[in-house]
Amino acid sequence: MSLTNLSGRVALGIDVGGTNTKFGVVNHRGEVLEKGGLRTDEYNKVEDFIDALYNKVYPLIEKYGAAENFDGIGIGIPNGNYYSGTIEQAANLPWKGVIPFSEMMKIKFKMPCTVTNDANAAALGEMLFGAARGMKDFIMITLGTGVGSGIVSNGSLVYGHDGFAGELGHTIVKPGGRKHWSTGSEGSLEAYASATGIAITAKKMRAEFPSSMLNQFPEDAINSKTVYECAIKGDPIAIEVFRYTGQKLGEALANFVMFSSPEAILLFGGVIKAGDFILKPTKLHMERNLFPIFRNKVKLVFSELAEADAAILGASALVLGAKK
Amino acid sequence: MSLTNLSGRVALGIDVGGTNTKFGVVNHRGEVLEKGGLRTDEYNKVEDFIDALYNKVYPLIEKYGAAENFDGIGIGIPNGNYYSGTIEQAANLPWKGVIPFSEMMKIKFKMPCTVTNDANAAALGEMLFGAARGMKDFIMITLGTGVGSGIVSNGSLVYGHDGFAGELGHTIVKPGGRKHWSTGSEGSLEAYASATGIAITAKKMRAEFPSSMLNQFPEDAINSKTVYECAIKGDPIAIEVFRYTGQKLGEALANFVMFSSPEAILLFGGVIKAGDFILKPTKLHMERNLFPIFRNKVKLVFSELAEADAAILGASALVLGAKK
Repeated sequence: MSLTNLSGRVALGIDVGGTNTKFGVVNHRGEVLEKGGLRTDEYNKVEDFIDALYNKVYPLIEKYGAAENFDGIGIGIPNGNYYSGTIEQAANLPWKGVIPFSEMMKIKFKMPCTVTNDANAAALGEMLFGAARGMKDFIMITLGTGVGSGIVSNGSLVYGHDGFAGELGHTIVKPGGRKHWSTGSEGSLEAYASATGIAITAKKMRAEFPSSMLNQFPEDAINSKTVYECAIKGDPIAIEVFRYTGQKLGEALANFVMFSSPEAILLFGGVIKAGDFILKPTKLHMERNLFPIFRNKVKLVFSELAEADAAILGASALVLGAKK
Repeated sequence: MSLTNLSGRVALGIDVGGTNTKFGVVNHRGEVLEKGGLRTDEYNKVEDFIDALYNKVYPLIEKYGAAENFDGIGIGIPNGNYYSGTIEQAANLPWKGVIPFSEMMKIKFKMPCTVTNDANAAALGEMLFGAARGMKDFIMITLGTGVGSGIVSNGSLVYGHDGFAGELGHTIVKPGGRKHWSTGSEGSLEAYASATGIAITAKKMRAEFPSSMLNQFPEDAINSKTVYECAIKGDPIAIEVFRYTGQKLGEALANFVMFSSPEAILLFGGVIKAGDFILKPTKLHMERNLFPIFRNKVKLVFSELAEADAAILGASALVLGAKK
């Protein structure tokens, strides 16, 4: 760590996931100077989690000039509400109900603190430091265990009336379709295009086609990674899993384009490792469902940020002087 | 017309529809001081249309203190592009291709001129003078011959990267569903929830149920007005026509809510004369398809502006100092 990196103001970016929490110290050039993490799911009480986080982060705060040298703490967290600073009814976190997370963090860390949901944070990171630099209108879709989204319109994140805008994973792409394992809704984008959804599709398809390579794996090893391995070896059923997923995703993206007419849609998360297996059918079905004036205009691209850093960068962007 | 009304600055609001064009002089209190109109479809050349419009409007410009007393001309027009001032590929207008409408108007009228699509203009009117006063996040859905939309997010109209955002009538609510008579898309909201779509639904349903009152009308008299007349008399098939329409509309609205999380959705246009026959099923199916954090929050209301004035008011709002 050079002295140059230690000079200048920094921010603390924190990405709280259902299983793991990652944090980092980020400077104004978007460099992650330090990184660390802890398990989220080991703490049944949010107070204990914040104490443990503080103990891990405190040495870094000291190292980078104490709290007064920090622009603040930016936090990406499932169901984090930008306006109220609360986490509300987060299905994937151990802490239930409405939690005044931002307020609790502010008291503990003695710094300004801003929260938003994890996908919004990723979109901000992409706008400041990634593939969306210079863009005023784009949509970020995160394809992980779930499907999240962050929408930027006219240079600002769309938070909506209550701070919860951009739950595109829960939009319905096939009325009466696949039942969601957690929300109970029928035919949501998340039910098809998340890693969880892809595994469900793969298990159904391999049962129908005994000759598929997918049948060489035990049930619990079927995930988007193993489907990709089979697809790259030419297994037509594995390829069809991604094609079907891309069709559902593309149909959903077409609707999103006709809503906010973005310059680009950025795809992010573990699922995009499938590359063209997912990108090509997604683009085909997006274009096919667009009203003519939108066709062949919208860039469909993968995130440029290293996945490990993107969440931290995005969270830090909440307090690093990004447009909010 | 009192001298008070003649004092103060005014704007010219123009609503260009496929059949008729309406215009009015509007003051800063949102009062339509004068109104007039002409047929749109009588002019095969856009130049001739602008000349005819000018001849009709000129006496009003003189009466209200000449061009220098006007904030400008605001125009709501199908496929009107806010950024470029052009009309592009408007299916319902006699003039094809890309037309530099704003520029042509500016030269003829010697006033600043701003265009946007008709639904965006209606949304602005509603925000300045109607049911959306004080709201920063709402969606306006116009249910007429077609289905249009104007989206306001964080106090501003969402224009998108290219100025064409908010084509919600063309979003797909039922993949592989009813083919659109003009765009050829399958299962768009417009194919079900427009007046045209309602007539199609009514004709199908009355063919299946010979006892329906709807069978007392000749084919070309089946429209949302006659369906309403039968519904109010208790005809179960006519009621089912609106229920089915409301279901499709409600499912679409749920997706829109999960996109931008608006405070309210405003419904506007001829179809809303069906009142609770359409409103109740729409609300039911919207709520049913929402992710829990959005439930029972979004107001679903009818426009408060007189239909004849709303388009003119909305168009004038483009230049009357409204946030753009």
